[in-house]
Amino acid sequence: MVFQKRLQLPSHSRGFHLITSHILNELPELSGVVHVFIQHTSASLSINENADPTVRMDFETFFNHLVPEDSNLFLHTDEGPDDMTSHIKSSLLGSSVSFPIKKGIPQWGMWQGIYLCEHRNTERKRDIVITAIGE
Amino acid sequence: MVFQKRLQLPSHSRGFHLITSHILNELPELSGVVHVFIQHTSASLSINENADPTVRMDFETFFNHLVPEDSNLFLHTDEGPDDMTSHIKSSLLGSSVSFPIKKGIPQWGMWQGIYLCEHRNTERKRDIVITAIGE
Amino acid sequence: MVFQKRLQLPSHSRGFHLITSHILNELPELSGVVHVFIQHTSASLSINENADPTVRMDFETFFNHLVPEDSNLFLHTDEGPDDMTSHIKSSLLGSSVSFPIKKGIPQWGMWQGIYLCEHRNTERKRDIVITAIGE
Repeated sequence: MVFQKRLQLPSHSRGFHLITSHILNELPELSGVVHVFIQHTSASLSINENADPTVRMDFETFFNHLVPEDSNLFLHTDEGPDDMTSHIKSSLLGSSVSFPIKKGIPQWGMWQGIYLCEHRNTERKRDIVITAIGE
Repeated sequence: MVFQKRLQLPSHSRGFHLITSHILNELPELSGVVHVFIQHTSASLSINENADPTVRMDFETFFNHLVPEDSNLFLHTDEGPDDMTSHIKSSLLGSSVSFPIKKGIPQWGMWQGIYLCEHRNTERKRDIVITAIGE
Repeated sequence: MVFQKRLQLPSHSRGFHLITSHILNELPELSGVVHVFIQHTSASLSINENADPTVRMDFETFFNHLVPEDSNLFLHTDEGPDDMTSHIKSSLLGSSVSFPIKKGIPQWGMWQGIYLCEHRNTERKRDIVITAIGE
């Protein structure tokens, strides 16, 4: 059995945001693997801590420190200082997450949730594709 | 065909550890993809070199350098200096690995193995879920 | 339905290279998920911007900056200064990418392509395994 659906997320400000509920709403009742893919190269997805908002704030702080915008390193800056840095953050974190599902119940740990990582300064709606494969 | 099993790994000290044999023991005889997911946000999984122990030591050294604990960057440090850094390392490396399998044989390269990346100072047992999908 | 094929990529120089067309040529007409796995630990795969060559140049610049070869950090340097750094870059970027497919059409965004990330100085042919699972 294959379930596949494209979903447009509401726009989020630059930073790391929990989008778990958007995914949960769509899950079919199968056992297998759920794959969530973001159709962009300046935003990404990750699975991490789902409770304390300071974790997501610390993620934003750290990734800005790791991939600095004031760098003279980059050639591809046509769309501003957050252009190339967003591409790099996207590859460090990844364009997809996947997790096991059993009879429609995600087999996450208690503290796991799904992050939308918005790396651009300007808010925009982001498209994701959810695919569940199983039986 | 879907195969799914939760497995508790024995506790490992902080660092990078080969857990390939734990996974190999569970693989069903199908052709498709194997997905291994860790149900935690302060430990992660990766696929890398399976022979020389100094590679895993260098991984631990580098990630401590990349995500320093003496940083004043972080707000989320309730559980100690290895708290927020563990979450970040987990997202940089990822909460799952996946690889092709053919008639029950992993289609790895000769030098590839699966790492458990334990980012916390205190040893703890870690739960993983292995899902294989194929025919 | 499961489709699986091993493919040898032509050798590429150190850096980030678009290999999207090699993958596209192999895709079966199913709906589900495509998984692409590289059978090496000193090269990796990523999904990112597919149009401007300076993006791939900036990726090479940034990853050399992030994982410096002149470092005294590493023990595993038998094969040269690009040995251990290649393993680390490989785990930061990952040994596989996966994306949704619908009736044989990849469900990418307009600007997404697949990168081969070659981290070694010496060119070599790299083996990948493409697995598509769906219906």
